[in-house]
Amino acid sequence: MMEGKLLISQMMERAEKLFPKKEVISRTHSGIHRLTYKEIGERTRRLASALENLGVERGDKVATLAWNDHRHLEAYFAIPGMGAVLHTINIRLSAEHITHIINHAEDKVLLVDPMFLPLLEAIKDHIPTVKAFIIMTDEELPDTPLSPIYSYEDLLLEASPHFEFVKDIDENTPAGMCFTSATTGKPKGVVYSHRGITLHSLAMGLADSGGLSEADVCMAVVPMFHVNAWGLPFASTWFGTTQVMPGPSFTPELLAELITSENVTITAGVPTIWLGLLKELDANAERYDMSSLRAVLCGGSAAPMGMIRAFEEKHNIPFVHAYGMTETTPLVTLSRLKSYQEDLPTEEKLQIRAKQGCVVPGLEIKAVNDDGDIEWNGQDMGELLVRGPWIADEYYKDDRTDEAFKDGWLHTGDIVTIDEEGTIKITDRTKDLVKSGGEWISTIDLENALMAHDAVFEAAVVGVPHPEWQERPVAAVVLKPGAVVDKAELMEFLKPQFAKWWIPDDIIFMEELPKTSVGKFQKNALREKLQEHLV
Amino acid sequence: MMEGKLLISQMMERAEKLFPKKEVISRTHSGIHRLTYKEIGERTRRLASALENLGVERGDKVATLAWNDHRHLEAYFAIPGMGAVLHTINIRLSAEHITHIINHAEDKVLLVDPMFLPLLEAIKDHIPTVKAFIIMTDEELPDTPLSPIYSYEDLLLEASPHFEFVKDIDENTPAGMCFTSATTGKPKGVVYSHRGITLHSLAMGLADSGGLSEADVCMAVVPMFHVNAWGLPFASTWFGTTQVMPGPSFTPELLAELITSENVTITAGVPTIWLGLLKELDANAERYDMSSLRAVLCGGSAAPMGMIRAFEEKHNIPFVHAYGMTETTPLVTLSRLKSYQEDLPTEEKLQIRAKQGCVVPGLEIKAVNDDGDIEWNGQDMGELLVRGPWIADEYYKDDRTDEAFKDGWLHTGDIVTIDEEGTIKITDRTKDLVKSGGEWISTIDLENALMAHDAVFEAAVVGVPHPEWQERPVAAVVLKPGAVVDKAELMEFLKPQFAKWWIPDDIIFMEELPKTSVGKFQKNALREKLQEHLV
Repeated sequence: MMEGKLLISQMMERAEKLFPKKEVISRTHSGIHRLTYKEIGERTRRLASALENLGVERGDKVATLAWNDHRHLEAYFAIPGMGAVLHTINIRLSAEHITHIINHAEDKVLLVDPMFLPLLEAIKDHIPTVKAFIIMTDEELPDTPLSPIYSYEDLLLEASPHFEFVKDIDENTPAGMCFTSATTGKPKGVVYSHRGITLHSLAMGLADSGGLSEADVCMAVVPMFHVNAWGLPFASTWFGTTQVMPGPSFTPELLAELITSENVTITAGVPTIWLGLLKELDANAERYDMSSLRAVLCGGSAAPMGMIRAFEEKHNIPFVHAYGMTETTPLVTLSRLKSYQEDLPTEEKLQIRAKQGCVVPGLEIKAVNDDGDIEWNGQDMGELLVRGPWIADEYYKDDRTDEAFKDGWLHTGDIVTIDEEGTIKITDRTKDLVKSGGEWISTIDLENALMAHDAVFEAAVVGVPHPEWQERPVAAVVLKPGAVVDKAELMEFLKPQFAKWWIPDDIIFMEELPKTSVGKFQKNALREKLQEHLV
Repeated sequence: MMEGKLLISQMMERAEKLFPKKEVISRTHSGIHRLTYKEIGERTRRLASALENLGVERGDKVATLAWNDHRHLEAYFAIPGMGAVLHTINIRLSAEHITHIINHAEDKVLLVDPMFLPLLEAIKDHIPTVKAFIIMTDEELPDTPLSPIYSYEDLLLEASPHFEFVKDIDENTPAGMCFTSATTGKPKGVVYSHRGITLHSLAMGLADSGGLSEADVCMAVVPMFHVNAWGLPFASTWFGTTQVMPGPSFTPELLAELITSENVTITAGVPTIWLGLLKELDANAERYDMSSLRAVLCGGSAAPMGMIRAFEEKHNIPFVHAYGMTETTPLVTLSRLKSYQEDLPTEEKLQIRAKQGCVVPGLEIKAVNDDGDIEWNGQDMGELLVRGPWIADEYYKDDRTDEAFKDGWLHTGDIVTIDEEGTIKITDRTKDLVKSGGEWISTIDLENALMAHDAVFEAAVVGVPHPEWQERPVAAVVLKPGAVVDKAELMEFLKPQFAKWWIPDDIIFMEELPKTSVGKFQKNALREKLQEHLV
């Protein structure tokens, strides 16, 4: 067989050749732009040429601080297409962490949405590796002490549309990198290879995975600085899928409007996004038409079953649960019913689909606890281990590599059960699991049960030090606006659903829960706060 | 990223773990067998263990002379799973050619359907590399001078069900091989790697390609000795798809019955097979239920548009044209409408779908003639070139490698046009093209036009030496039973459709057309016969 290298550039080349008329609909500060893949392809080549003119060489890191828009998409292909490395910076990190990761990656050029200029201005004296700032705008360049600065559109105008993507690189060459927050310490860097992203894109296109097709209109709501927007910009371009890019500071209303006006068929994001959309649909269903949607992909953290039910039963929108992480590019599992499960009672099907699903072709999983590999019986809990060609094998120049990568497996830090069908269910994070008198209690199961109560908007459960049991669960609950319920009633609500020793020792009510930059519950902050609660 | 080797064994392992209850329905000489993937997996491991006991080592060639059934499927995974090479022998080749390829491949063990024993008995003294014959039967071993012979089922009974597939091999290790007939000389061998077959399987699963899903019931009618049955046994196993294997000497009635009884959703084969099925459905539609079928994949040679129309309009069966060859594993293109073509008039859509389609993700194509790369304008003709990770880069130990593999491209020998949409249309084989006075005439276009006539069952057009024009086209036509038409009427029928100089100089009527072992028109035989026809 020929070598046939798995390089990202083939994706854009296919879009240019086979789908020149298909569109990317991009919302930016200056409004909605509609560009064809022919135009995107040409602009991508111009951007690569411009970066080359600025001195970017193979292996250099070029970073983005940007939303989901067409310029970010062009960067996705121009940077790996010239043999450089696309570093997507999570703009929700602290200034201190952003400074750290720019230095750690040794970013040479930054592509910046103008709204992040104040952030960069504040740290400009601490990022010496950066040789140029490119402002992603079609408006006049703002007044800024950053230097040297360039206008994205001006650079493109002056650059060559005939740039040839480099082909004489190995498929294992780094193509991208992304930093993931750590519980303690600085963010950890993950490097993606051309091969890994290419294989991941194929997995996304499989009928039983994303099933991404030319006929789809895909709106990645998950930010492009978060695990490559789950690889959707790559796969969509490769398959000629129409892309809708919601841009900066979008709202649930805006998402619902874009789905309606652009006939979006598939969209992807974290539960917080879908909770917001759900509220909007509940309040203003008559304003929107969601009938084009064939799948809402949800990942990042577990979606409460009540949310899945609401999307499907109230709004007739198919909801697909997926699982992955920054270290896994990210697709690991996807929750779809097997054909012979289609005849099960509705409630049972919902139970299955609320789990994280089965591993996609190309990867391997198992789960381990102190006794070794767990049985696939849906009961035993163990830490999920993953391996395969789009799984990281290290953190970028980081001593913490050894904690997570052992014996050829990524140790995910997620505690799961796996049932006879191979369906995994996240029951907790290793660090969040409550260890009560030597037994494990899943905080996620308790949270999901609480959030299924009509009065509860959000709930988080943490392990709190206890003099007798080492740790006991305590729940923090945010009620829906106007809802009234007391602690005793919630306790009674939980009791029939769990073993007695799983019931939290206390339930406290809060105005809002602390969250991370990507919308996950920040349990360490909550634990900190409740440190003395049971002593 | 981890190395995550692309090995075939992961496919069977996934089927065993995630789809142990799903079934393979296998028709053999002793009737229909239903086995689960759990059973198939265990039997595959037993077969690998048995082969190991017989002395098969890594890199050894193990050949099959077999139909599409569960034992052949087990061989598909056991042989590459132990690091050996699966050599699928085309049982329709001549005894002389089969002798040659066994010797050329140096096959060590043969797995044989009992009906091919007479063939092997005749050549047994000329295949010295073969150390064992395994008879694929659950019945008593026949009396045969072949030696040593073993019963497949007895070997499995004695072998270990715990064989571990080898993992310490490179993904570029040979996994299979297949010989393709040549116009002149011995068949040419193509070697498939683990990587190539794995990537090809992913391409088969893409929504816009085969879209093969767990929910599908796939019946590969294309023989498993013909380019791995287009990779469907591999992909189906990986994705947990139910497989229906039609076994030996099937008839159109049998295929229609299997589709009806097993609710087949996708099936694949060459035009000859579908012509047969069409006749059966036309005659006895009331006996069958074809409503489960979502796709009839057709490749191997071009399907006449009339056939596509008949399947879709008369029988409501979606027909999908594909293109590939032994050298390409085989999937290169697949003909699906783009979303914006769905609104075209029915006739125009049929015209597009009768072409071979667009290149699938992962491969590259272009076409060249004496002037270099042709334009993608749907008019210019050139030879199709293909490259990518599941394209062969040589013929196995064969001097003819240099004719077909040049500058990193496979030269397919197929003459095509490519339109603005990237849709390729085969207009001829290089060797079949009629060169009339320096201009090219597509014999396939003429054949398709003739076969669109109500009275015509089959037609072949060949170039025949001509004193003035070097070559001129002559058509050979087989009429439908009972149909009456004369030469003049067919000529008149063609005239409005082609330039004057494309019209054949003569049309001759035949009882049947000479065909190759895989059902393609044997044009060299026809040319031979008509050598003196125009002088």
